[in-house]
Amino acid sequence: MIENIIDAPLKKNNRTIIFISDGTGITAETLGNGLLSQFRDINFRYVRFPFTDSPEKVEVCLKRIDEVGRQEGVRPLVIMTMMNMQISALLRQADALFLDLFEAFIAPLEQELGQRSTHSVGLSHGQDNREYAKRIAAMNFALAHDDGVSDMDLKNADVILVGVSRSGKTPTSLYLSLQFGLKAANYPLIPEDFDRGHLPDTLMPFSDKLFGLTIAPEQLHRIREERRPNSNYASLSNCRREVAAAESMMRRAGIAWLDMTSRSIEEIAVHLVQAINKKHESVEYGRN
Amino acid sequence: MIENIIDAPLKKNNRTIIFISDGTGITAETLGNGLLSQFRDINFRYVRFPFTDSPEKVEVCLKRIDEVGRQEGVRPLVIMTMMNMQISALLRQADALFLDLFEAFIAPLEQELGQRSTHSVGLSHGQDNREYAKRIAAMNFALAHDDGVSDMDLKNADVILVGVSRSGKTPTSLYLSLQFGLKAANYPLIPEDFDRGHLPDTLMPFSDKLFGLTIAPEQLHRIREERRPNSNYASLSNCRREVAAAESMMRRAGIAWLDMTSRSIEEIAVHLVQAINKKHESVEYGRN
Repeated sequence: MIENIIDAPLKKNNRTIIFISDGTGITAETLGNGLLSQFRDINFRYVRFPFTDSPEKVEVCLKRIDEVGRQEGVRPLVIMTMMNMQISALLRQADALFLDLFEAFIAPLEQELGQRSTHSVGLSHGQDNREYAKRIAAMNFALAHDDGVSDMDLKNADVILVGVSRSGKTPTSLYLSLQFGLKAANYPLIPEDFDRGHLPDTLMPFSDKLFGLTIAPEQLHRIREERRPNSNYASLSNCRREVAAAESMMRRAGIAWLDMTSRSIEEIAVHLVQAINKKHESVEYGRN
Repeated sequence: MIENIIDAPLKKNNRTIIFISDGTGITAETLGNGLLSQFRDINFRYVRFPFTDSPEKVEVCLKRIDEVGRQEGVRPLVIMTMMNMQISALLRQADALFLDLFEAFIAPLEQELGQRSTHSVGLSHGQDNREYAKRIAAMNFALAHDDGVSDMDLKNADVILVGVSRSGKTPTSLYLSLQFGLKAANYPLIPEDFDRGHLPDTLMPFSDKLFGLTIAPEQLHRIREERRPNSNYASLSNCRREVAAAESMMRRAGIAWLDMTSRSIEEIAVHLVQAINKKHESVEYGRN
């Protein structure tokens, strides 16, 4: 049985959201997060039913929907991505508000494209072996080139990130690899670089794929304090010095940089993808 | 200017999809991938306009939409997530099929919840600092506990993955951390373990959070061949032996395992999240 457990009483202004998918449900939940974040006065509780691909699994969902409705005195919201129309019809017997992401868009797409859709499940998450292999290769590259551990093979990097320690290089590199299949290396800027006053020599041949990450000294200070409390490394004055030195170094080297203060890993990654595409003037084909 | 470049001629049965968002556009593209994968006879070309949050940026989109329409003789499809209604109204002047993920669902949600939505951008991608810190801490945990490099602190792991070398433990661990903020350690099962015939002793106190990953020997063989061609390590017979030994070891230890053959990282991760939730019978509150 695939579900989460609810056993706490529902407070006023709480609503239960049930995500149902015959796939992972990640798309439904991501879009749901965006939609529900627009209603700030309500506290949402999530229940998830991924891989709901049989009448038996629908039965479990139906029971839970009825239960929630009875316990809370108000019908739950169901946000769903269901490719299989038979399964989705079974589900709709329940008393809930159904927001069906596929249903809403498949019909207009069929009309526009002049084709019937195949209604098959699970085509979207990179089951394509080449796509999978590309992401794994990119992840291995990111791990092998994390924190400047290797200068090897930098010519095969799609992007090389530089920035002070704890400016978000590693999570950004890994996210770029796992989400976009891009090979990202990253180099910390350290006191030796600041003394020398320019970016590491190894990186200079690759200036066209160098990007900087920077961060507000105050936020860097908070992040470093958690790692090494009361150290010079974490002190606000040292963070201010390092960030200023790094930014002036990046400015002199003429490389673009992004400020990750109050930006999420996803946002930084998408900004980088756009910047890379712009530099390469790449043409994109196919399903991806 | 944030966009990709199109300069190749459009073949028959090709259609251009333009993703436009005032956020990252990841949600639009993920849902778009799912929708478009249902139309197999058409080759889609993607153009992306993330962070489209000003009339000036809309202008760039409008130009591109018109260009694509003129060049291809058919209006493009625009898949969009726009929180800002003024911006989105500007965009709709163009001649395109607009699939607006927010518009389609915000109205029914407002009615059901009896509230107006705030129509503000960028609330969904973990800009919440605690959420961000949790994901980064989880990623650091995954890196520090990759491939059995450390036994420290295993009691704080949310999940410990075991499996033969190249069965997908590292990407799964990293994805669990970056997407779900879960702390994942992973241990390779190696010849010494097979000789001894049981899982590493260090792991036995944590059997409640142990999960196995397995893989078809043929696929493992292909993956390992890329890494170490013509080695005993990569040979099909050795892959068969290792997978059989690992599975029998996991069966004896009574731990659940997942077969990652032809499953994506996302699918494996969601299966694990569900399995972990079931074990912990966790209650989930709040927006996430």
